[in-house]
Amino acid sequence: MSERLSAREVKRHKWWGWGLDDVTFRYDNKPAFAPLARNKVGVDLDSKQPVEPQLSDFEVPPSRLPGAVRDLLVDVVGEENLADDDEYRVVHSFGRSLPDLFRARNGHFERLVDAIVYPVSEEEVAQILRIVLEEDLVLIPYGGGSCISGSVTPDVSEQRPILTMNLGRLREVIEIDDTAGLARVEAGAYGPDLEEQLNALGWTVGHFPDSFTYSTVGGWAATRSSGMQSDKYGDIEDIVRGLRMVHPDGVAVTKPIPGRDSGPSVHEMILGSEGRLGIITEVTLQVHRITPVRQVIAYMYPDWEHGIRGMHAIARSTDVAPTFTRLSDGPETEFSLAMVKEPTSAKGKVAAKVQDGLFAYLRSKGWDTTNEMSISYVCFEGSKESVEQQKGIVKKIVKNAGGITLGAGPGAIYDQKKFDTPYLRDFLLNYQVFGDVCDTGATWSNINEVHTKVYDAFYAVQAEQDLPGFMFCHMSHSYHGGACLYFTFAFPYSSDEQALEQYYAAKNAVQQTFVDLGSTVSHHHAVGTEHQPWITEDIGEVGVRMLNGLFADNDPGRNLNPGKVTTP
Amino acid sequence: MSERLSAREVKRHKWWGWGLDDVTFRYDNKPAFAPLARNKVGVDLDSKQPVEPQLSDFEVPPSRLPGAVRDLLVDVVGEENLADDDEYRVVHSFGRSLPDLFRARNGHFERLVDAIVYPVSEEEVAQILRIVLEEDLVLIPYGGGSCISGSVTPDVSEQRPILTMNLGRLREVIEIDDTAGLARVEAGAYGPDLEEQLNALGWTVGHFPDSFTYSTVGGWAATRSSGMQSDKYGDIEDIVRGLRMVHPDGVAVTKPIPGRDSGPSVHEMILGSEGRLGIITEVTLQVHRITPVRQVIAYMYPDWEHGIRGMHAIARSTDVAPTFTRLSDGPETEFSLAMVKEPTSAKGKVAAKVQDGLFAYLRSKGWDTTNEMSISYVCFEGSKESVEQQKGIVKKIVKNAGGITLGAGPGAIYDQKKFDTPYLRDFLLNYQVFGDVCDTGATWSNINEVHTKVYDAFYAVQAEQDLPGFMFCHMSHSYHGGACLYFTFAFPYSSDEQALEQYYAAKNAVQQTFVDLGSTVSHHHAVGTEHQPWITEDIGEVGVRMLNGLFADNDPGRNLNPGKVTTP
Repeated sequence: MSERLSAREVKRHKWWGWGLDDVTFRYDNKPAFAPLARNKVGVDLDSKQPVEPQLSDFEVPPSRLPGAVRDLLVDVVGEENLADDDEYRVVHSFGRSLPDLFRARNGHFERLVDAIVYPVSEEEVAQILRIVLEEDLVLIPYGGGSCISGSVTPDVSEQRPILTMNLGRLREVIEIDDTAGLARVEAGAYGPDLEEQLNALGWTVGHFPDSFTYSTVGGWAATRSSGMQSDKYGDIEDIVRGLRMVHPDGVAVTKPIPGRDSGPSVHEMILGSEGRLGIITEVTLQVHRITPVRQVIAYMYPDWEHGIRGMHAIARSTDVAPTFTRLSDGPETEFSLAMVKEPTSAKGKVAAKVQDGLFAYLRSKGWDTTNEMSISYVCFEGSKESVEQQKGIVKKIVKNAGGITLGAGPGAIYDQKKFDTPYLRDFLLNYQVFGDVCDTGATWSNINEVHTKVYDAFYAVQAEQDLPGFMFCHMSHSYHGGACLYFTFAFPYSSDEQALEQYYAAKNAVQQTFVDLGSTVSHHHAVGTEHQPWITEDIGEVGVRMLNGLFADNDPGRNLNPGKVTTP
Repeated sequence: MSERLSAREVKRHKWWGWGLDDVTFRYDNKPAFAPLARNKVGVDLDSKQPVEPQLSDFEVPPSRLPGAVRDLLVDVVGEENLADDDEYRVVHSFGRSLPDLFRARNGHFERLVDAIVYPVSEEEVAQILRIVLEEDLVLIPYGGGSCISGSVTPDVSEQRPILTMNLGRLREVIEIDDTAGLARVEAGAYGPDLEEQLNALGWTVGHFPDSFTYSTVGGWAATRSSGMQSDKYGDIEDIVRGLRMVHPDGVAVTKPIPGRDSGPSVHEMILGSEGRLGIITEVTLQVHRITPVRQVIAYMYPDWEHGIRGMHAIARSTDVAPTFTRLSDGPETEFSLAMVKEPTSAKGKVAAKVQDGLFAYLRSKGWDTTNEMSISYVCFEGSKESVEQQKGIVKKIVKNAGGITLGAGPGAIYDQKKFDTPYLRDFLLNYQVFGDVCDTGATWSNINEVHTKVYDAFYAVQAEQDLPGFMFCHMSHSYHGGACLYFTFAFPYSSDEQALEQYYAAKNAVQQTFVDLGSTVSHHHAVGTEHQPWITEDIGEVGVRMLNGLFADNDPGRNLNPGKVTTP
């Protein structure tokens, strides 16, 4: 076990945005990006030199944590592992949803969390929980803070002191059972930390959400995360085989045994509980040996419907089992092409020429190469023979569905840039442009309808609001019965005063379309507060009643992240 | 939709045993069976002509259902769909656990259910539930009645009238979504009925528990069933994508969407709830197209440890995905060979000679062919090419693990006799011999220890009890992290008075060993009452407390199958 970090060494977001202070999105090396921004959302990127927000411009209300309670907490974690300075309180009071980003950078600090504690053991977590219950505090668990559904954001009307528990010091791989392929991991381990520790021993957990760099295993479990490779490795509920959660009455432990039959699943009550039942301190993950071969192959279809035909045939085939199957629709393909860097090497310039030639050929075949054709990536892992054989089968499936195989070259690009996108939202906010995402699970039988009607709903709202807008979508991964659809939308808001109203008009139209068509309010972005307006339509009145009963029974004082998932 | 059965047309077990009245196990065509019985449990099968129990030999207490309540129920389902005659009450008062079988055939009728209703719609189920709550009855849902954990058995101390709800008239495939591969099915559909309806349309659900012929989809969901093909198709929690449950406050509905993120899983609270939260009336199942090719190949290993090495390598391979992987240990292989019918055809006689030759050859290689060598079956489904390729890979894996490939001939036998075993228990009871099963989930790292120590525990108890005994075991299917172990044991009990005490001594030793080694109290046989003594060791005190809270909150009057899973 490596040395424990102190609170100040735990990585954290910049207070006003995603990720590291010194990383920002840049477009000067992406020749097609500025024209796209102008064309789609009417913004002239060159017109303005963005100014970074300054915390000193805003008033930060003082912490409401009573000194005596603070002392009790310091007795547990030590002075250096309790933070209540302005910047830390601001960072921990917002997730990374679009409204959170907007409010943070505009100094909406009406109600911040009052202090942050950084425990380093399950025992410390238990002691803190005892103090929370005895002193009637509110406790919010915090992993990587990447949440886009409001799960870590305090309720502005909360009168009790609010404590955030940052699990970032609990980040070790405790042990690996080599035979069963099970890794016991502390809840605060960030994605990259975890993969590094595992990779060094020849293992991978195979879980790569977009938030990978700024999310933790405990957060994945508490919010039912899903990743880009969930086709093969499963969603987090398949990967987390066992866990430990500090609960008001003791530590809940679920065994990492495949196949259990012990009544209603306590394990599945804890997954997705967003801190309302206790604090997850440890998870046991199914890990897999890194395969000898891994290849991402790119394909192109004339349009979304052809692509879905191909994706569905792959998902249903009994002969292939790809690691992931991704399809971008026409607008997203257009966006992706605009994100490509200007080639600087001779090799890159040749590749660009080849691409131009290919697109010309496709146009000659009648394809619309501007905003209809849809790029797909499929990842294969296994032995050399197996990967070759699966590639052969998928190539045929794609051809039958009307697509073509581009090969491994464009596929390799996929792996390089996959975790960059979150920085783009901060960049756009500099220009008063909102960019955000909504995801849903859809069956193969309604996936095209969901796709079409979400577009209709979004553009109808934008027309009503008299605002331009740009939407694109990809299928991020698939199952035998359906797939995850992931929509991105962007538009310029009119003014700071109207901004959130305009945002919610657009977002709500999308979410409402999901549930109206029988899809889920979210596929893997938790409920928090942002998705609560649709929770009854999602799981029904009886379902909500069962969850309310669960929360009330386990936390009668409403001390544990109250108001998340359901209210009360 | 076919015509609705009336209550009397719904299939049911014989009152004293498993399945159909006119089907019994016979051994006269199995030359090695009687010698094995004599050798292992000291019973001379030829010494005795079994006598079938007669219900008229016993006193059946009258129904305690008040006439006025009976009238209310008849108003809902009609006179012909309420049963309260002796035989029906006896049949529905026992599952098919060994203690239940013993008690049924020995007339332990201290407390029978008072009446059985057969609703034919969700609305009727809801009306009955309302009566149950208003009149303070106890309600036990009943599918196929195959439960071996006591889930359908009434509490003998229950003073309120007890009503069993048989779902057998609700047995239709309502609709199939061809694109998503989702079948909406009424909860009372028996396995064979369901597969027949699906197969006719080219689909299979792929769920084949040992109880297949006498269990229903609703029962599978309510008890977290698992089947012989769960390697590929998953356990029932993977197969049941959505469901409807009549709950005291309305109908709970979970959507059949792949990937949902709606907080703690209401769906997974209902799965395994054994009637304590309501009555499951409908499930939506993931179904699969029947594959062009299906083959079961048999393999032989010198012993269990070599076999497990092979099974583990198959489970971990990224290049094969068999439909099932089964391994019988030495004693079970010996038992299986004793169950083989005497060859009557010329072809059969040749096969027997070939087998004799093979065994002689294996002995010459140093194998112990009496009770060490371990037979394995692996099933492949897919295209012809894929099946051939996978067979090739598995053949190599088996060889590397020290085993040999027997081929498709013995594999075909596997499919023929797979649902016959339950009749054997009734047959043995004729000779005062108990035969029963215990199952657990184990990780690959402790599977051999569980295997060894369960044997030790069983034979130690039998030595203490001064009774002979015979135990055998198979690995029924596997996962990336572990597998399901399925133990069978048999022994002659001394007297009717001591029978159950002797039974529980043996069974408890096995179950205690499971949990002592960190395995689950059951892999897929529910909790009911029989597995409750270990529920706290299985899911911990906090887990039990969470379940108790769940049950108390949703059913404060304890009207819904009280005492099952946890008490209260």
